[in-house]
Amino acid sequence: MARTLEQSFQVRFHYAVEFTSHLFDTSNAVFATTVGQQRSACKVLVVMDDGLVAHHPELPLAVTEYCQVHRLNLVAPVMILPGGEAVKQDPVNVTLVQDAINMYGIDRHSFVVVVGGGALIDLVGYAAATAHRGVRLIRVPTTVLSQNDSAVGVKNSVNAYGKKNWLGTFAPPFAVLNDLHLIETLENRDWLGGLSEAVKVALLKDEEFFAFLEAHADALRTRNLQSMEHAIYRCAQLHLDHIATSGDAFEQGSSRPLDFGHWAAHKLEALTGYTLRHGEAVAMGIALDSTYAHLQGWLPENDWQRILTLFERLGLAAFHPLMLQSLDDASDPHSLLHGLQEFREHLGGQLTIMLLDSIGRGREVHEMDLDLVARSVQILATRSPYSSSGPNPSAQSPEEPAWTTTAIPAP
Amino acid sequence: MARTLEQSFQVRFHYAVEFTSHLFDTSNAVFATTVGQQRSACKVLVVMDDGLVAHHPELPLAVTEYCQVHRLNLVAPVMILPGGEAVKQDPVNVTLVQDAINMYGIDRHSFVVVVGGGALIDLVGYAAATAHRGVRLIRVPTTVLSQNDSAVGVKNSVNAYGKKNWLGTFAPPFAVLNDLHLIETLENRDWLGGLSEAVKVALLKDEEFFAFLEAHADALRTRNLQSMEHAIYRCAQLHLDHIATSGDAFEQGSSRPLDFGHWAAHKLEALTGYTLRHGEAVAMGIALDSTYAHLQGWLPENDWQRILTLFERLGLAAFHPLMLQSLDDASDPHSLLHGLQEFREHLGGQLTIMLLDSIGRGREVHEMDLDLVARSVQILATRSPYSSSGPNPSAQSPEEPAWTTTAIPAP
Repeated sequence: MARTLEQSFQVRFHYAVEFTSHLFDTSNAVFATTVGQQRSACKVLVVMDDGLVAHHPELPLAVTEYCQVHRLNLVAPVMILPGGEAVKQDPVNVTLVQDAINMYGIDRHSFVVVVGGGALIDLVGYAAATAHRGVRLIRVPTTVLSQNDSAVGVKNSVNAYGKKNWLGTFAPPFAVLNDLHLIETLENRDWLGGLSEAVKVALLKDEEFFAFLEAHADALRTRNLQSMEHAIYRCAQLHLDHIATSGDAFEQGSSRPLDFGHWAAHKLEALTGYTLRHGEAVAMGIALDSTYAHLQGWLPENDWQRILTLFERLGLAAFHPLMLQSLDDASDPHSLLHGLQEFREHLGGQLTIMLLDSIGRGREVHEMDLDLVARSVQILATRSPYSSSGPNPSAQSPEEPAWTTTAIPAP
Repeated sequence: MARTLEQSFQVRFHYAVEFTSHLFDTSNAVFATTVGQQRSACKVLVVMDDGLVAHHPELPLAVTEYCQVHRLNLVAPVMILPGGEAVKQDPVNVTLVQDAINMYGIDRHSFVVVVGGGALIDLVGYAAATAHRGVRLIRVPTTVLSQNDSAVGVKNSVNAYGKKNWLGTFAPPFAVLNDLHLIETLENRDWLGGLSEAVKVALLKDEEFFAFLEAHADALRTRNLQSMEHAIYRCAQLHLDHIATSGDAFEQGSSRPLDFGHWAAHKLEALTGYTLRHGEAVAMGIALDSTYAHLQGWLPENDWQRILTLFERLGLAAFHPLMLQSLDDASDPHSLLHGLQEFREHLGGQLTIMLLDSIGRGREVHEMDLDLVARSVQILATRSPYSSSGPNPSAQSPEEPAWTTTAIPAP
């Protein structure tokens, strides 16, 4: 006897990404409307980023007051957890969130609301997605990077085995609420860092958007809110369009067409012990892979220069000294080049790297010439502020560069 | 500024459920074909149920030999973990599987293969679904219950906070391979227990299948393999059809139309400290809710009697003494009635219970009359083997009934 039953079905997902300001001002109806009509019957648990609370100490109480005024069933005082990549490093943070989900009887029709940066959103999303096989998650991203990229997508994760996002699921949110007021108090590193994902998606999908970023580079660097609002909106829109039209929202294939510059970025984050932030690392990864694409003869000289110039004008460094480490040995886990293998392992299947043919048009390749990657790093090194031929140091972020801190692990 | 981006997309899933025999006999190509054409490039990690190994001590080495002959890249000796609900109670078992996934570099295009009963399949599935946001899982269910029900579906889970399946995800398998030879060595409790899901799906969907089960009840109870093969195949087919056509494969709504009898079953499993097996508990839950549906005037007397008679002839008990505990107090966690609240909490939203209008036709209700549930229990109690009016004890499973063991926690 040998018989086969073939199973085939589709699952439809829908969610809205709302752009608003002063979300928890009692006069703003967006949050209450999102929770829905039968709001008093639905439980709400709110988790907030301590980095946000440091800048907005009034926010936890504002949430409580908002829920009272709008008759939302807030089951507990706002729960405050650390923000930043560190929160994803310790599994106890997942347990803390799930303890609360269990204790307050949050079910699949209740709401977990996470307010903060991309790392905390990833972690709370993972806790929510695995509790009861998924309770409803409302994301309130409060950084540029999370508003324009990570929080509008379908992934959640924590780190494990020293590897970024090793644990996670694909689980779309119930809704995403972008509060543009909250990004005003961001540290400059986080304001600027988030722009690298906008540069990335413009490079892959939309030359006109790239031209916008060029035209508004000074305004963006000097924290013009209106320019930033447009950059976030368009970046989020391109990201959402990609997920909806890629035909592979849950990444069952080998390709991750939005991960331009990310093999090097993920590795650099790990090499610096996560003192380099994701957006900063992505800028370096894009600069590197653009240089590589140019050296291969694909990306024209002029396009390549426009990319590097834009990063300089945005105050995003294109180079980090640890990129030079063990460049002759891709098998050394301390080498940037080892990131290629780690990137392939995370996705599985054939190595697939997104590069560029021109601004606005990507190109997928299945192998990388390691010598040419090393030459690309060298070229970026000679342009860096540590080199006499580098750009004007005044174009750098006003903050101390991350690599001068003492937190970098020894190679 | 208030703008909204609406996101909407679908994800397509496909997998095959193969019915075969002697899967790891080197002459059987099914497993190698499932791993695929580029088989030597794909890593394979196999996890096996210790209960299965006890009956088939040759199996771990047979897997190794099979992989050698078919040039499959088996990365490690077969990993053996405990079977049964106990494995889902201890989170260290998830960690053990994920440690191996990490250590052997299993990626999203590699395979984790789980060979065993439904509980181990649930656990390994959860570990695989959350590693790298999901590595490929091949399920080789070896019990009646897992071959006809749990392993052909889209769920995985472990227990937490003392609650069954509290942690889990929706993640379809890469493939399901049902080896009919392996069920021949099942303990009688597991052989018979799996039939309750077949009775359930027949009652909800297919009167003709119910008639088949009636006609073959004696053959099924006396372990006729051919009758069991058909029962498993048809039950799996009805289950798969339901998932594919329900429009809610990932249970985003409030309804779980296949969970007939399950609110009481889940609670009874917990009340007995999981000494009662899932299939045994489901038979009791179905008997209870069928009786309730009859007392409500929905299910005709004759249909109700056919159901109880079929369970008797299959050797599946319809009653457990713990069902009588605290029947007057639904708020007591030791009462069966508390299971209604737990069932609603797990799904969220409105309480939705599937009952019966007739054999082959379900009816959903949103409230249960607790006095009538209590009366239904009393009626089953008077029919039980502990009552003088009960069925012929020879119709019971030859094994010791679960509730005579000492493992039952005190109320």
